[in-house]
Amino acid sequence: MAKDINPPRGMRDFLPADKGKRENALAVIRGVYESYGFQEIETPALENLDRLLSGQGGDNEKLAYRVMKRGAELEEAISGGSDADALADLGLRFDLTVPLTRFYATNRTSLPSVFKAVQIGPVWRAERPQKGRYRQFIQCDIDIIGDDGILAEAELITASLAALDALGLKDSLIRVNHRELLISLLTGFGINSENLSKAMIIIDKLDKLEVSGVIQELKDNLGDQVANEAEKWFDSLNTSEIPEILSDMFQVIGSQRLKFDPTLVRGMGYYTGVIFEIEHPGSGLSIGGGGRYDGMVGKWLGADVPAVGISLGFERVIELIAGGYQSSGVVLVLEDDSIEVLNHALELQRELIEQKLNVRLELKPKRLNLLLENMKANGFNRFALISSDGAKPELKYID
Amino acid sequence: MAKDINPPRGMRDFLPADKGKRENALAVIRGVYESYGFQEIETPALENLDRLLSGQGGDNEKLAYRVMKRGAELEEAISGGSDADALADLGLRFDLTVPLTRFYATNRTSLPSVFKAVQIGPVWRAERPQKGRYRQFIQCDIDIIGDDGILAEAELITASLAALDALGLKDSLIRVNHRELLISLLTGFGINSENLSKAMIIIDKLDKLEVSGVIQELKDNLGDQVANEAEKWFDSLNTSEIPEILSDMFQVIGSQRLKFDPTLVRGMGYYTGVIFEIEHPGSGLSIGGGGRYDGMVGKWLGADVPAVGISLGFERVIELIAGGYQSSGVVLVLEDDSIEVLNHALELQRELIEQKLNVRLELKPKRLNLLLENMKANGFNRFALISSDGAKPELKYID
Repeated sequence: MAKDINPPRGMRDFLPADKGKRENALAVIRGVYESYGFQEIETPALENLDRLLSGQGGDNEKLAYRVMKRGAELEEAISGGSDADALADLGLRFDLTVPLTRFYATNRTSLPSVFKAVQIGPVWRAERPQKGRYRQFIQCDIDIIGDDGILAEAELITASLAALDALGLKDSLIRVNHRELLISLLTGFGINSENLSKAMIIIDKLDKLEVSGVIQELKDNLGDQVANEAEKWFDSLNTSEIPEILSDMFQVIGSQRLKFDPTLVRGMGYYTGVIFEIEHPGSGLSIGGGGRYDGMVGKWLGADVPAVGISLGFERVIELIAGGYQSSGVVLVLEDDSIEVLNHALELQRELIEQKLNVRLELKPKRLNLLLENMKANGFNRFALISSDGAKPELKYID
Repeated sequence: MAKDINPPRGMRDFLPADKGKRENALAVIRGVYESYGFQEIETPALENLDRLLSGQGGDNEKLAYRVMKRGAELEEAISGGSDADALADLGLRFDLTVPLTRFYATNRTSLPSVFKAVQIGPVWRAERPQKGRYRQFIQCDIDIIGDDGILAEAELITASLAALDALGLKDSLIRVNHRELLISLLTGFGINSENLSKAMIIIDKLDKLEVSGVIQELKDNLGDQVANEAEKWFDSLNTSEIPEILSDMFQVIGSQRLKFDPTLVRGMGYYTGVIFEIEHPGSGLSIGGGGRYDGMVGKWLGADVPAVGISLGFERVIELIAGGYQSSGVVLVLEDDSIEVLNHALELQRELIEQKLNVRLELKPKRLNLLLENMKANGFNRFALISSDGAKPELKYID
């Protein structure tokens, strides 16, 4: 009897057409980032749990998959009557930023003094599955560690836009703000420093709550005066006048694909300077984001190390790209699997592969048309029949 | 103070040079397999635990990392006084074969009737870490599902050897045997059917125990007669006379890169026909292996589905390949990060990237020579100084 055969909840199988599309897109991103001088690294999917949950991952820490201890350590934890937390010692990474900071601390003596990293790989979050949100998904991050100046930001923006352009997403824009602008704005509303992050979290909900909802929530949490000041500010929002702190960036990148957004917050607590979010008219959600996080890398080293990064949300990016097979492969259909026919087919396959074709061998089925139809849908648009007479067959298009 | 900053035990960080070498090799393997008509798929890193531990993974099941339940389910399992097993619901895959059989069952209606799959990805095993053995490592598998004939075996061997050739490992050989040969041999020794797998496990230790050790162990476990018969057989081993059941394969592939090995067993219990192991003179260990496993895919479907596969042990393959950067990149050294210099540098970078160069921007440090030396070691062999005068700088080689 057939058993339950689905992948785990919120996780996906990728069939050949999708997998091919994804690998092609990743190769494009990888190639562009490399051409801009970024260097790819890789960290393990697992990190020690105490490090993963050390407070740098924000709310994502709650979503970490925990991996159980093994052998004697597990027995000890159980017999010690430990709570659930003590039964796990490893966790699946929920982003590529926490592992990057650990990687930098581990390997810094082998890295250039300004380290420009590419990371492309899966992350795991035990989120409630919903449309477009998965429990395993790919992130594509670039980060520059060791440069506290505008060059780093300019490179990240340039390379990210070039990658999106190479994927055909030339309408992508980057919205930009600066944490210092937010802090001075909110302080001006009369919010004291303990309440700053609470206020930022509320403003970050602008997408969902709209202006009136945000003002209401500010009122409920931080009082009338703050709400009134915020209302005045929303009424007079000016995105065309670029603040001094961002003006160099706009002069370097230009304002065609950079947009000042004074309401941009970004959820993560670790940002210390400029923050980005990437948008595309084809997607209602942001397709990437990032910012400067100067305090984070140093935590493992006990020293300050400047860092800034942009992450592309690959699952949202890939949905904006047209896919499908290019249909340039050849199917060699073998009349039978006698040694003569096999040898003939393998030889012809080798020749055609040398001509840069994808060549698939198939034993002739009863219903040849059905096979050819199916092969065409899988990217093979020509075929030839191989018989034992050894004659060189003609390649025909599958109609 | 610096904290412990190592990756988890038995797992590795990959620095840019290693990561680049690995990605290049994977792209070669992927490209060759695609040219031979195989189609890449992907399954999640996690599978439901009961499926992962359903007996198809052999000893590897004991090495599976278990992922803890979450939220209410975890609380319930704990308050129910469950044992450790009931606290986990997911596991990290320990090979790509068990997930493939699940994938096929899930998606078979969308797949060609003969499905030729490529899978390239990490697997996880909680083994005792030792030299050359890791807890996260990459496997590269090709499998043909739905073809019970020699064509499938011939394609797998041809494509695997082509992939190794493309990586420069032209001295790779495939040792081959057949489970039916082993069964008839062992039955001839007087071993009854219940003891067959015990005998195979002993013979599989030939590498470690050598002939005398294997005979001793057969004697201890299965008696004098079996040991005497085995000794006679070892004395008269004949690898040049190809048995009938393998003769078609040798005629198709040729005996130059195929070697009959009557002592080849392969550990996994699920093999039903031909078995392979790939060797290379540069490695004392096998660099790949596989075989026919006709009974396994059908388990999820309640029907028999023929299947055969070969897996390349990527970690062993990559050690046989020379690496290193190609050194064709350019470093543009910025005199300062003024807007003029930044704009000038970004423009030149774009031009050079269009000429297919990798171009890295660096702010001029106090010790330029140190930077250039480091950059050269990272694959950038030319540089130019960018100043604010806007003049087009000359590219110079880094000596």
